[in-house]
Amino acid sequence: MRPEETARAAGAAMYAGDLASQRLGIEITEIGPGRATAAMRVTETMINGHDVAHGGYVFLLADTAFAFACNSYGANTLAAGAEISFVEPARFGDELVAVAVERVRYGKSGLYDVTVRRSPGGQVVAEFRGRSRTVAGSLLEPHTDDGATT
Amino acid sequence: MRPEETARAAGAAMYAGDLASQRLGIEITEIGPGRATAAMRVTETMINGHDVAHGGYVFLLADTAFAFACNSYGANTLAAGAEISFVEPARFGDELVAVAVERVRYGKSGLYDVTVRRSPGGQVVAEFRGRSRTVAGSLLEPHTDDGATT
Amino acid sequence: MRPEETARAAGAAMYAGDLASQRLGIEITEIGPGRATAAMRVTETMINGHDVAHGGYVFLLADTAFAFACNSYGANTLAAGAEISFVEPARFGDELVAVAVERVRYGKSGLYDVTVRRSPGGQVVAEFRGRSRTVAGSLLEPHTDDGATT
Amino acid sequence: MRPEETARAAGAAMYAGDLASQRLGIEITEIGPGRATAAMRVTETMINGHDVAHGGYVFLLADTAFAFACNSYGANTLAAGAEISFVEPARFGDELVAVAVERVRYGKSGLYDVTVRRSPGGQVVAEFRGRSRTVAGSLLEPHTDDGATT
Repeated sequence: MRPEETARAAGAAMYAGDLASQRLGIEITEIGPGRATAAMRVTETMINGHDVAHGGYVFLLADTAFAFACNSYGANTLAAGAEISFVEPARFGDELVAVAVERVRYGKSGLYDVTVRRSPGGQVVAEFRGRSRTVAGSLLEPHTDDGATT
Repeated sequence: MRPEETARAAGAAMYAGDLASQRLGIEITEIGPGRATAAMRVTETMINGHDVAHGGYVFLLADTAFAFACNSYGANTLAAGAEISFVEPARFGDELVAVAVERVRYGKSGLYDVTVRRSPGGQVVAEFRGRSRTVAGSLLEPHTDDGATT
Repeated sequence: MRPEETARAAGAAMYAGDLASQRLGIEITEIGPGRATAAMRVTETMINGHDVAHGGYVFLLADTAFAFACNSYGANTLAAGAEISFVEPARFGDELVAVAVERVRYGKSGLYDVTVRRSPGGQVVAEFRGRSRTVAGSLLEPHTDDGATT
Repeated sequence: MRPEETARAAGAAMYAGDLASQRLGIEITEIGPGRATAAMRVTETMINGHDVAHGGYVFLLADTAFAFACNSYGANTLAAGAEISFVEPARFGDELVAVAVERVRYGKSGLYDVTVRRSPGGQVVAEFRGRSRTVAGSLLEPHTDDGATT
């Protein structure tokens, strides 16, 4: 498979098992080698008083984009950790878009930058940097048994 | 009010407005000056394939404990950012307990360490360090209008 | 002054007082609004056994590039904190080049990404993300008295 | 060897090769399993204008304490990355003391918290969290050839 095809196949395999993202209405709107875009609308159940989204949901969206980006080569890859800076609160009804881009891969490790923006307008809501670690197994071999992704 | 009473009153005010934590079944089991403990059970909607909890929900629980700890003095305090390391996956049905402890406060800033453990057993699931920033307003004056906490 | 001129003037003012960078032979090879490049050769006194540079010196170079970038608008700006990932060791005799680029500014805060590479070859040695905070005073008014930069 | 002896032997082996720490006058004043204390005086060559120490030297001291703590079991262990928050500037002549304590080890990874304080007085200067990764080889077998520590 070419890298773009591998990324799409890996993303489809991940999404099928990712009940958490599905239930929150997260969509993967773009995926390719080392990159992914995830979108989510801020609903009432994500609100933390005063119509502000709980920072945990902003992180969760960024973490999802990161997980799809770092698994886009087809090898099972875990989130080892992440750093987030909250720039602006997200509010009830906002459409949030998280764009994950690979910064560097080395050995079994990788770093991915994710920017979360509010739509429309494009105001930055958060900046996230995720650290990944590739483990045994492949997302594209259906019989593997250790495909945890985040 | 004494510090312990202030912490309980601030926590009650925050929890009342925090639909996100309420809907996830998060409970604040302990709160005091500069500290808070939050508990949550991993449900089916938090699963990310293979019975592993989405890292975003582990972060969200830690972030909640952090928010209650850094707001425990009664002054409105925001999460400026956080760093998380994922130590062990959490699984469907696990009871997770996040204990937040203040490390240092300086000027309007603060650092809080949160350890998330699995119960029973006490295995560490994640280590989190949150950075807070105190802004105008108080959680204990009912007419303030900018009490976003995370 | 135009932004490019302000950046050069701010950089010159900072460098004049920055004995630490001068003594290590760090040079600022490029500066502009929100960006700066710093270069340093790994000397014997930076070695940590086995011809590997102490990670503290790699951080110091990245931190210098960050400080010049976040002060390039002329307003006194402090390093609030930073995160670094060590990608590859640097070795005795390596010429290291740190390129700092602004990611986002909001209120008095800013985030800057710094990549440290080895020359020749361009291999990434470290990835750094700095958090800045602008305080009172200007680098371009000679009588100010609180111009600490890092 | 008992753990305390192993820690002292590993620390001695590391210090012998660590020219960088030696040249800066850093002393390891205490070491044990999973912990180490390092001390350094802020000299003129560490100053960054206005008698404030360059943040890079504060990081370097914390990173040294971290390296000795995470190598205290005798197995070669690298710094994978670190996060630092600058709390208060350090000044010319200050004696800085960095205390590193292990937070958790899991697989080949570890997390260590380092607090840097100013002496006398004990004011916190910086809070640091380091991420370690154990690799092949031992500090206590003299013929190994890959003992990079930071």
